[in-house]
Amino acid sequence: MSVQAPTCDQIKYQPLSMSRSLRDITPEAYSTLRNIMVQLERNSCLGHAVQLNEQELAANKVIKSVKTRELKRGIINPANFTACQHIFQVLKKVERSPLFGLLRTMPKGGILHAHDTALCSTEFLISLTYRKDLWICTTKEGCRAIAFRFSKTKPELPGKEPCNWEPMSNYHGRCGDKHVNRYLHSCFSMYPFSSFLSNNEAWNRFMSIFSLLDGLLLYAPIWADYYYNALKEMHEDGVQYLELRSLLPELYCLDGRQLTMADTVAIYKSETERFVANHPDFIGAKLIYAPLRGVEPQVVEEYVEKCVALKKQFPTFLAGFDLVGQEELGRPLLDFAEPLLKMPEDINFYFHAGETNWFGTSIDENLIDAILLGTKRIGHGYAIVKHPVAIEMVKKLNIAIEVCPVSNQVLQLGQDYRTHPAAMLIANDVPIVIASDDPSFWLSTPLTHDFYFAFLGIAPYNADLKLLKHLAMSSISYSSMTDAEKSTAMGKWQEQWEKWITSIAKKA
Amino acid sequence: MSVQAPTCDQIKYQPLSMSRSLRDITPEAYSTLRNIMVQLERNSCLGHAVQLNEQELAANKVIKSVKTRELKRGIINPANFTACQHIFQVLKKVERSPLFGLLRTMPKGGILHAHDTALCSTEFLISLTYRKDLWICTTKEGCRAIAFRFSKTKPELPGKEPCNWEPMSNYHGRCGDKHVNRYLHSCFSMYPFSSFLSNNEAWNRFMSIFSLLDGLLLYAPIWADYYYNALKEMHEDGVQYLELRSLLPELYCLDGRQLTMADTVAIYKSETERFVANHPDFIGAKLIYAPLRGVEPQVVEEYVEKCVALKKQFPTFLAGFDLVGQEELGRPLLDFAEPLLKMPEDINFYFHAGETNWFGTSIDENLIDAILLGTKRIGHGYAIVKHPVAIEMVKKLNIAIEVCPVSNQVLQLGQDYRTHPAAMLIANDVPIVIASDDPSFWLSTPLTHDFYFAFLGIAPYNADLKLLKHLAMSSISYSSMTDAEKSTAMGKWQEQWEKWITSIAKKA
Repeated sequence: MSVQAPTCDQIKYQPLSMSRSLRDITPEAYSTLRNIMVQLERNSCLGHAVQLNEQELAANKVIKSVKTRELKRGIINPANFTACQHIFQVLKKVERSPLFGLLRTMPKGGILHAHDTALCSTEFLISLTYRKDLWICTTKEGCRAIAFRFSKTKPELPGKEPCNWEPMSNYHGRCGDKHVNRYLHSCFSMYPFSSFLSNNEAWNRFMSIFSLLDGLLLYAPIWADYYYNALKEMHEDGVQYLELRSLLPELYCLDGRQLTMADTVAIYKSETERFVANHPDFIGAKLIYAPLRGVEPQVVEEYVEKCVALKKQFPTFLAGFDLVGQEELGRPLLDFAEPLLKMPEDINFYFHAGETNWFGTSIDENLIDAILLGTKRIGHGYAIVKHPVAIEMVKKLNIAIEVCPVSNQVLQLGQDYRTHPAAMLIANDVPIVIASDDPSFWLSTPLTHDFYFAFLGIAPYNADLKLLKHLAMSSISYSSMTDAEKSTAMGKWQEQWEKWITSIAKKA
Repeated sequence: MSVQAPTCDQIKYQPLSMSRSLRDITPEAYSTLRNIMVQLERNSCLGHAVQLNEQELAANKVIKSVKTRELKRGIINPANFTACQHIFQVLKKVERSPLFGLLRTMPKGGILHAHDTALCSTEFLISLTYRKDLWICTTKEGCRAIAFRFSKTKPELPGKEPCNWEPMSNYHGRCGDKHVNRYLHSCFSMYPFSSFLSNNEAWNRFMSIFSLLDGLLLYAPIWADYYYNALKEMHEDGVQYLELRSLLPELYCLDGRQLTMADTVAIYKSETERFVANHPDFIGAKLIYAPLRGVEPQVVEEYVEKCVALKKQFPTFLAGFDLVGQEELGRPLLDFAEPLLKMPEDINFYFHAGETNWFGTSIDENLIDAILLGTKRIGHGYAIVKHPVAIEMVKKLNIAIEVCPVSNQVLQLGQDYRTHPAAMLIANDVPIVIASDDPSFWLSTPLTHDFYFAFLGIAPYNADLKLLKHLAMSSISYSSMTDAEKSTAMGKWQEQWEKWITSIAKKA
């Protein structure tokens, strides 16, 4: 058979040129062009450059199939989709989800945004109320808890409202353990407020939990136990590192004596060392001194001095500085620029900024100040998508946004995870890490719930193991660790990661 | 007194250099740098380039002061802020707002996104139910309205569920006008569903209103009256132009005869001309043929043929083509690419796309197809902020996003106007127009409510008359009018605008 040259008709090739109208092209050419554009979009997504080895590709199949099943069910009926609802309404359902199960065991790296007294499970908090020498201050005929305090004798401290002190054992006996436990369970979380409530009201409730816990947790021995237990819960949740923001309160002793701020840091440091000694696969922890922002500028001047002193005493453990509290009610960062500029270079900033929906206000502009003051990461940065110049800067300066999905929902910045601004950050390849802020107050796991909502609700349909791996590794690379520390950390993570991948790949 | 040279200490000038750490600069230098960055952000916002004359500057003072008052009250207590709540809960409050009053009288340009039978006030709809020869089909012992039909004798058409036909006058008499009116009021809108409800459920309710109205509005004489009244209500709301999306149903006559699709267009055209003749300050209207998207590709082939025939018959009145219905349930645009590529060049596309929260799904990618198929505007484009490549393309190709704030809230894409993605479009200088989609179904004014929420809730704190002017002018420049028509239109708008500015400036 002789070979014939193809006729013109058989040659499908048709050149694309910008001078031609798109409307004129063939369906085949259209399809080619469309694939290019879709690929271009996907290649501008966070995590697109991650490489997966053979084992990871096998594990990825399992993860994608589990995730797709949950997504498809949601598309058919969004009422079944957990990531468009409030966590308080779907907590149990989430915990039963096979995807959640996979993420629970995943080595997720570190938590780079979490606060001192909002880490542990409510069950652990309740167990603390059975400790010796604890008193409770109650009101409304002994029914409502106003404050706690450890003391040998009746405390003489006033509560935040008039109340009567009685030994906690009395209270337990008088009301019954079961009732007390159920009552405290409701006191120690933001439940049941899932319906619309302004973020100011949510913050009121939020701050009142911190304030109720103070007397319980600021007792020096408890402080140590609480923190150690937090590390334990994190470790069980696939977390290997922590960068903790703390107010560094001065702790009290049974005899009423007050410890110093440096003592508080020392407890954190030694408990971290003890935990790592007992759990060699744990990487460690560092501390961000993060006092309250609702103060006068001269107080920030004092904060800076305190931070400098602490850095001298704990040069490797103290990672940096931040200010905490509801941004919208405090002063804007700009008001503190003068004292903050005096912070020595060896202390990094990790500022909260943009935790607001008030676009274009002075609070919203905290994002600008955080960046100009040289922040290494941004806490929340919820509003940054409204700031194209700021987005360009964080990309160029390699500043990671600490995205805390559940916190943003519970504190009423947004409702549906699918509309969380981090979706835009992922689409634009803006560096992010996933963190949990105050998991204790929403009864969630130390990090898994946030990963679950980020992966299922915020990230695109096709997001897979590449994104998960990227997020886990980012939590190490955007940490305040030195390069040498990061290298050790990455090794410890890699070891757990390989074990996990093997276990998942087996399910394929 | 002799002049002395300043000492080094007195010279404040300190050069800024990228090689120096920001932390080292003086507070003065910091402040300079910060101002530059804030200015850079503001200058990348939509409408920043608009010039205001002296009168406009005076009017702007009034507008800014009224707006700022409402914003500040909201910042103190978000529960008082209408633009973070559901319109169904704040409708009366909004209408009493002084800012709303100013916007009500503002010449807002045209509405470029609105649907045929969702335009008029409920009061007008109810008045139509008193017309001669109307029948109602009811169920549940005559209590629930299933369908309407004009007829001389008892209609023989089935309702969408089994029901019994009776003359409407009977129904009015039997149940009492007051009860009937109140009942129909609830049938003709999406009220009271403001609480969380999946967007699928919202769409079900939404489509059922369209279907209930069909028998009432598809009667040829009513069709004309309804449309004329819609133009009247728009005109009273400061709207001077309309680009209407219509399914172009075949209308019926009293004798049961069916008109053709071309007859439907002819009614629109002649009613538009009649309205312009009676209201010379009105610019006019054009039509976008927008049949249902939930069909097989070969049906779209037929749509294209029908559209071509209509374009021949109404070359200037027919502006273009779109597909309507819930994107998430229909096929993706990609499935229709082949027939759509056959649309002749003189018929523009104005595709709905990205009216979804399902990031990365085939429906979400309708945005890509809309752009590649050469759409001139995008209906909703709610999801476009998750598509950086698409955003670059709409900017380069000058494609405007038709933002419909209230529709997106009621159809459950988002809750709080402050988190509406259009904020990011405004921040990024992406072309947008504000439209109302189906104002009849949410009991809102033809355009003012959408402008109010966009201006107060979506736009930044500092957004002012420049943005309002830009939005009004955009609705003319992004319309399908020819250059000559746009020039006339701009003249008609300018005349009303100047009157309005004068009236506002007087309040200064």
